[in-house]
Amino acid sequence: MLNRLFAILVFAGVPLVLAGAFLNWSDMIMFVLCCISIIGLSGYIGRATESLAIVSGPRIGGLLNATFGNAVELIISIFTLKAGMVGIVLASLTGSVLGNLLLVLGLSFFAGGIKFKRQNFSLLDARYNSGLLIFAVIVAFVIPEIFSMSMDEQTTLNLSIGIAVILIILYLAGLFFKLVTHRGVFASSDKNVDEEEEETPEWTKRKSILVLLLATVTVAFVSEQLVHTFEMLGEKFGWTELFIGVIIVAIVGNAAEHVSAITLAVKNKMDVSVELAVGSTLQVAMFVAPILVLVSLIMPEPMALVFTVPELVAMVAASLLVINLCNDGESNWFEGLILFAAYLIMGIGFYFL
Amino acid sequence: MLNRLFAILVFAGVPLVLAGAFLNWSDMIMFVLCCISIIGLSGYIGRATESLAIVSGPRIGGLLNATFGNAVELIISIFTLKAGMVGIVLASLTGSVLGNLLLVLGLSFFAGGIKFKRQNFSLLDARYNSGLLIFAVIVAFVIPEIFSMSMDEQTTLNLSIGIAVILIILYLAGLFFKLVTHRGVFASSDKNVDEEEEETPEWTKRKSILVLLLATVTVAFVSEQLVHTFEMLGEKFGWTELFIGVIIVAIVGNAAEHVSAITLAVKNKMDVSVELAVGSTLQVAMFVAPILVLVSLIMPEPMALVFTVPELVAMVAASLLVINLCNDGESNWFEGLILFAAYLIMGIGFYFL
Amino acid sequence: MLNRLFAILVFAGVPLVLAGAFLNWSDMIMFVLCCISIIGLSGYIGRATESLAIVSGPRIGGLLNATFGNAVELIISIFTLKAGMVGIVLASLTGSVLGNLLLVLGLSFFAGGIKFKRQNFSLLDARYNSGLLIFAVIVAFVIPEIFSMSMDEQTTLNLSIGIAVILIILYLAGLFFKLVTHRGVFASSDKNVDEEEEETPEWTKRKSILVLLLATVTVAFVSEQLVHTFEMLGEKFGWTELFIGVIIVAIVGNAAEHVSAITLAVKNKMDVSVELAVGSTLQVAMFVAPILVLVSLIMPEPMALVFTVPELVAMVAASLLVINLCNDGESNWFEGLILFAAYLIMGIGFYFL
Repeated sequence: MLNRLFAILVFAGVPLVLAGAFLNWSDMIMFVLCCISIIGLSGYIGRATESLAIVSGPRIGGLLNATFGNAVELIISIFTLKAGMVGIVLASLTGSVLGNLLLVLGLSFFAGGIKFKRQNFSLLDARYNSGLLIFAVIVAFVIPEIFSMSMDEQTTLNLSIGIAVILIILYLAGLFFKLVTHRGVFASSDKNVDEEEEETPEWTKRKSILVLLLATVTVAFVSEQLVHTFEMLGEKFGWTELFIGVIIVAIVGNAAEHVSAITLAVKNKMDVSVELAVGSTLQVAMFVAPILVLVSLIMPEPMALVFTVPELVAMVAASLLVINLCNDGESNWFEGLILFAAYLIMGIGFYFL
Repeated sequence: MLNRLFAILVFAGVPLVLAGAFLNWSDMIMFVLCCISIIGLSGYIGRATESLAIVSGPRIGGLLNATFGNAVELIISIFTLKAGMVGIVLASLTGSVLGNLLLVLGLSFFAGGIKFKRQNFSLLDARYNSGLLIFAVIVAFVIPEIFSMSMDEQTTLNLSIGIAVILIILYLAGLFFKLVTHRGVFASSDKNVDEEEEETPEWTKRKSILVLLLATVTVAFVSEQLVHTFEMLGEKFGWTELFIGVIIVAIVGNAAEHVSAITLAVKNKMDVSVELAVGSTLQVAMFVAPILVLVSLIMPEPMALVFTVPELVAMVAASLLVINLCNDGESNWFEGLILFAAYLIMGIGFYFL
Repeated sequence: MLNRLFAILVFAGVPLVLAGAFLNWSDMIMFVLCCISIIGLSGYIGRATESLAIVSGPRIGGLLNATFGNAVELIISIFTLKAGMVGIVLASLTGSVLGNLLLVLGLSFFAGGIKFKRQNFSLLDARYNSGLLIFAVIVAFVIPEIFSMSMDEQTTLNLSIGIAVILIILYLAGLFFKLVTHRGVFASSDKNVDEEEEETPEWTKRKSILVLLLATVTVAFVSEQLVHTFEMLGEKFGWTELFIGVIIVAIVGNAAEHVSAITLAVKNKMDVSVELAVGSTLQVAMFVAPILVLVSLIMPEPMALVFTVPELVAMVAASLLVINLCNDGESNWFEGLILFAAYLIMGIGFYFL
């Protein structure tokens, strides 16, 4: 059913975006069409990655998921960087972190908790994730923010580059840890092994690669159109760069993922649902963000890893809240509501800012 | 014995406050008399609420405790708002949070720990509380503080109103969670069930309601007198608004509660003692504070949910310390001493500020 | 083998420092010679303390370790204070905290984790330590920082003195808790009992005391020489006070300790290794730092307990990271890498600052 929805979104949306791009349709219409198309395309990318992962076995599969999981966001961000809108990129990274940690996890806990009194997920995974979350947000994001206050721009950029390289290396080392040296220790990868061996992939290897390539190229094209509508959004609705990035771009870029996390929670597969939400956060913070810092060096304007103070404070608060709620390996509807309420408060804050 | 003390405080204090109000006694004497009377009256309100709670069964009883638990503080704060002293209200909210988390919990752990080598309390309760504590202090209090730095006054107030509404809804949802959907899961509510069914209330329903009404009205009258003495305190002792609110008002408003938390700890009922201290903190942060924000809208000066930086930092530090010390479900005298030392440091800080 | 290295460092280094002091050798050479000598001397002090501790039984032994564990650092800092370089003292305290928490613990986890898949250490110790860590860093260090922003210098100093006294009292109370009222509860002290009763001390009581005295006096002499070279370091290498203190002084002052913590980790004595690293951090924060505040009152320039913002933020982030990684009582190589990466990021930050 969901797959059919994604198909409709893509096969109606993309041609219209194409038409609009040639016929110069109004920014408002283009914005809506681009969003719809991207959400649909994310669905296809997700399915293709999953099929490929099953065919390739758990190690390469884990790597594939880890690389293509946020491909859409990466592509949108690169086009936004190309258009010189560094502020929106940082804001959309913030939005991804907040959206995954508070909105997706919150709705998953809530929706699952309505059906089940208590749901369990792997404590080992939760601990692995919470350690990296503190590292990424409270060390790697906070340090450049605070230290840059008494640095010039070039030094700040140098510090950002250093941190970006360390983040990427640590992210890869973490994959090595989970997929090689300590495989089987983690509940989720453990289950994947069982399930994947039984599971048959939806698509063949050939078809998966083809879909992945086609969808990725199309996302790139649509993203370029989308980015051009941002200015209009600011003027027409009075939305700030911050609000566009934190709320709009983040939701569009992660919509497909959000839907599957919540679907899994209702099926009581809380392990995978939490992994999707928190794992995706870590991927954004430790992989997408530093890659964008490095990519920005060949772009019109370099991007230092320096968020605005409200962005950073929101991410730190969200991280502490999620770590605290997850450290017992259990969830219920009320914990979901707490997370959702935190997202709401931050959303209102960014709207008013 | 304690009850007799409260009786003496009330039946000596209240008539003297009345006399003083007509005869225009000096502010210094009035301040002392008001404090004495309020401490005594809080004792009566506490006993009446408890009796009513036993009669009404655990659900309505829980609701009653949750509503009247900080009635005295709410009343003092409303009169302080009426006098336009917004700073003192925010400071006394801070003081309540710090007093409950550090002073009461600290003295409970310490006094109980002198008698017992280790004391246990419910881990489930501790987790429920710590999640809400992070939500209330680190999300709901920190966000308006940081975001308001680049907002005008009206926008800050709008943000505060939004957050206040979310806090109250979440607080009520939490009661629904604890008393309805997940009742019996929590150790303390569980025990209440057993104990309350055996326990006979001290007063009849009729007498309880009468005492509650009378004491509440009297507290309102005395509070009005008390508020008028604040200005003098500042001039005479050189105490700042902050110190008066954080230390003086907070201790007077919570004295009766403090005594019973410590008494319970010595009786090794650590579950109830922790619930009193931390539960009361949450009530102040998620119920009293947002209600005061809403009430302030019809007062001379509206109150945004924006604390001073020292107030906020002290509350964040206290929350992190308490969450860390409570997350093993055990206490001892040294943990009590740590909490007390933290209170002392903050007390000295606010005195010097 | 390690002992022989320390012997060479001392018997080659100290005479050369002596010679250099009389012959006015260049600052660059003197700096290297002083560092070498101090590292060697720390080794001797460590061995003498250990022997004395074994002879004196676990209680007095614990006290000895707790007092002489950071003797070298204390001495260097006192001479730095005497030279009026308050900034370097605060920076070296920061460096000690960061070095112990991130570098030593990180290398211990990593080196041990290469050999063993998972290593365990006492959860009770970890909890005791994490509570004090939050108290020391997030309460006792953060409060004067934030509150001093609106205080004059004298008030800030008064607040610092108050906090220093509270820190020392709480530190001593903690020793009383661990060594007297709750002895045997803690895994590490428990093991010490067993091991120490079997273990024979390396040196006799007489020899230990002699070595301790001689080494301490020599450290004092060498420290005085070392301090004089700091100015040159700044000019020659463009290193800031902050970098000299945080990285250089901290590593030299703790080198001997670092080596033994890592050696113990490889031998799978993770309990003792963690205790060395985190225990030493607490000793610096709760004993060395406040003593330096009090000592500074009779020095040319008094030292308030006010770190720079980057120093404080780095310590808070490091504490939260370590508490999170340690609260499961387990370690592996990847957790070690996370800690080391955090140290690297901060090191780069302080270098660029």
